Amino acid sequence: MGHSQPALITREECERLDAEDPLASFRHQFDLPPGLVYLDGNSLGAMPRSARDRLAEAANQWAHGLIASWNTAGWADAPQRVGDKIGRLLGARPSEVVVGDSTSVNLYKALSAALNLRGSGAIVTDEQNFPTDLYVAEAVARQHGVELRRVPRHRLGEAIQRDVAVVTATHVDYRTGNMLEMHELTKAARDGGALLVWDLCHSAGAVPLDLNEAEVDLAVGCTYKFLNGGPGAPAYIFAAGRLHGDLNTPIPGWFGHDQPFDFGAAYTPETDARRLMAGTPPILAMAALEAAIDMWLTIDIAQVREKSLALGNLLINLVRRKCDGFGLQLASPEEAAVRGSQVSFRHPNAYGIVRALAEIGVVGDHRPPDIARFGLTPLYTRYVDMWDAAEKLGEVLRRRTHLAPRFAVRAGVP
Amino acid sequence: MGHSQPALITREECERLDAEDPLASFRHQFDLPPGLVYLDGNSLGAMPRSARDRLAEAANQWAHGLIASWNTAGWADAPQRVGDKIGRLLGARPSEVVVGDSTSVNLYKALSAALNLRGSGAIVTDEQNFPTDLYVAEAVARQHGVELRRVPRHRLGEAIQRDVAVVTATHVDYRTGNMLEMHELTKAARDGGALLVWDLCHSAGAVPLDLNEAEVDLAVGCTYKFLNGGPGAPAYIFAAGRLHGDLNTPIPGWFGHDQPFDFGAAYTPETDARRLMAGTPPILAMAALEAAIDMWLTIDIAQVREKSLALGNLLINLVRRKCDGFGLQLASPEEAAVRGSQVSFRHPNAYGIVRALAEIGVVGDHRPPDIARFGLTPLYTRYVDMWDAAEKLGEVLRRRTHLAPRFAVRAGVP
Repeated sequence: MGHSQPALITREECERLDAEDPLASFRHQFDLPPGLVYLDGNSLGAMPRSARDRLAEAANQWAHGLIASWNTAGWADAPQRVGDKIGRLLGARPSEVVVGDSTSVNLYKALSAALNLRGSGAIVTDEQNFPTDLYVAEAVARQHGVELRRVPRHRLGEAIQRDVAVVTATHVDYRTGNMLEMHELTKAARDGGALLVWDLCHSAGAVPLDLNEAEVDLAVGCTYKFLNGGPGAPAYIFAAGRLHGDLNTPIPGWFGHDQPFDFGAAYTPETDARRLMAGTPPILAMAALEAAIDMWLTIDIAQVREKSLALGNLLINLVRRKCDGFGLQLASPEEAAVRGSQVSFRHPNAYGIVRALAEIGVVGDHRPPDIARFGLTPLYTRYVDMWDAAEKLGEVLRRRTHLAPRFAVRAGVP
Repeated sequence: MGHSQPALITREECERLDAEDPLASFRHQFDLPPGLVYLDGNSLGAMPRSARDRLAEAANQWAHGLIASWNTAGWADAPQRVGDKIGRLLGARPSEVVVGDSTSVNLYKALSAALNLRGSGAIVTDEQNFPTDLYVAEAVARQHGVELRRVPRHRLGEAIQRDVAVVTATHVDYRTGNMLEMHELTKAARDGGALLVWDLCHSAGAVPLDLNEAEVDLAVGCTYKFLNGGPGAPAYIFAAGRLHGDLNTPIPGWFGHDQPFDFGAAYTPETDARRLMAGTPPILAMAALEAAIDMWLTIDIAQVREKSLALGNLLINLVRRKCDGFGLQLASPEEAAVRGSQVSFRHPNAYGIVRALAEIGVVGDHRPPDIARFGLTPLYTRYVDMWDAAEKLGEVLRRRTHLAPRFAVRAGVP
């Protein structure tokens, strides 16, 4: 840190950027606490106001339509309908995405199905992958009697040897925001005869995606971060159409059946991605999620990406100038092209810093051991928020409030 | 049908029974369409009014508390907290029940974990089990390379041979309402060295349960039927405390980790039933569910059972008298002690009957091929509903409206 820089941008100039921001109006579609600088939308996205109305509507469908609402209110089709809508954000074709279960369960399904398709061979994963991904990959490898190889993230490509059946990686790293090259790695896997399962938790709603163009095989992701689907909102699973006929879930439930309401004793899977569904879909949660996705379908993701990178560059520069000399190290890529929609710093007291910042109205997140993470959600994050966050971060570091004893012990925060 | 009977009860006498019903006041706690006789609460339970308020409260926690709500609003503890509350309805100890995932996924976890505990051996199940249970049991058997034996429901006990590792059965049959003897069958499995996984979907909130007293090993169940948790509400899983140390989920997710917020690369499971959790819990759905369960905790299940049997006996008698000669066969047990909280009839035109009844305000359900099913939910089902349902059933059969062409083709209804 401490590079020589041109004159520092002023808060007024940030306000001017906000006034000119083509995405500025979307902030009004969210119900946000006044005065808060919320930079944790990559952990839990803010609530679209329409989600509250949709939840109330779903409650009315439950109360007044009762069982008939499975047909009359479109509940039975919701996993596919909302899946198809999310598919438009991912660059997927209709019937390639379904919504339901958690990311953990969907990853389990995807890895098991992929391994079964390949017959045998090792699983390769990023050694710094999100914990659930590592646990699930390890369990699937053990259950199938194959090896799990944990390799450094930047060596995933070269780890795709001939004996590898499945690769799984998180597209945008949850700690640093480092983004892998999706086309290149997917092609490397394909050329090596392996299937690649992408975790898109920090990608959808954050960076442009085109799964079909990249010829992606399988992908999973959550909807409660950048997509604003609500706390613990159901996850999605993508399977390329060309795989549908041969792809078998390890958890064949009645909602993945071709004719679920025949209640047949023999399992015949649906012909498309619905075959990856298991139990009864979570309708109330799906209602809030669909509200958020309907909003997303009105948004130009290229504009989101452009603003995200501008916000990130601004925050990096402001922190460099306002927090120089306090030991913060940029953990995110300097290069915008390989950076997702977050900026992370390393600091030995990262936990105390995040806690002290939250007390003065800037919500970021801590990731062990030493990461302070700031999520950039261009639908409701403003340029002036970058200025205020950097200013308050400098204040914390100068006043050493992050070293206060009450911030010394880390408590559980998801 | 067509037994000789004493004088038929009048509608006024049913109204008197309702006036004297100690559970009558609970009906006001539900938001129900006026004039509807809803006998499908064993498919989707009615909405407690408090669920609407709790959903709105959860939305506010999301909007205004944002990420902090995981701690400040008790979200992170919800799977265990709501699980413990459900455990009180099941006769389980604290930390033996967690809420999350669907019944299908939970059954998959329970069967896999049970089979791993036993090492090897066949799985035995009721051949008429709910479809998802059959599909999942078949998948788990195939994945573990063991045999799945489908046997008639009344022969489950004798099917527990020495080479059987795991038995799975639904306590109350979804078609007929036949209830298995839980103590006896659990003991037979234990004596035979097998673990028994109970499906309680049609039991919890319908019949008294005491899992600990019956020394049950594992159980799963949904919350959207008799428990009124909402459409697609998260399911629960019970594991007896004595098994916790050795019980390993096939889907190890971060919410089952001993220290999920350490984000460690190695999986160390929680010490209790939380080790069966996988991904991030569905908070909005859990809010509605908790409202329903909080209501259930104020209810005496013995009173519910008493009224349920009285309603069932009344409906059977009324249908016998009002619908004599139309070919209805009682599919549910005549004997109350082995009947859950439903009354089912067989009829070649069961589908048309259910559809025609729905058009005149009596909602039951059809289960292929020939079952017309009427769920009894004593918190909001009245004695007078039995009278009206039987009267209208007779009307349909006499007028032959169930044979109308528009009821000839069965559409998908969950």
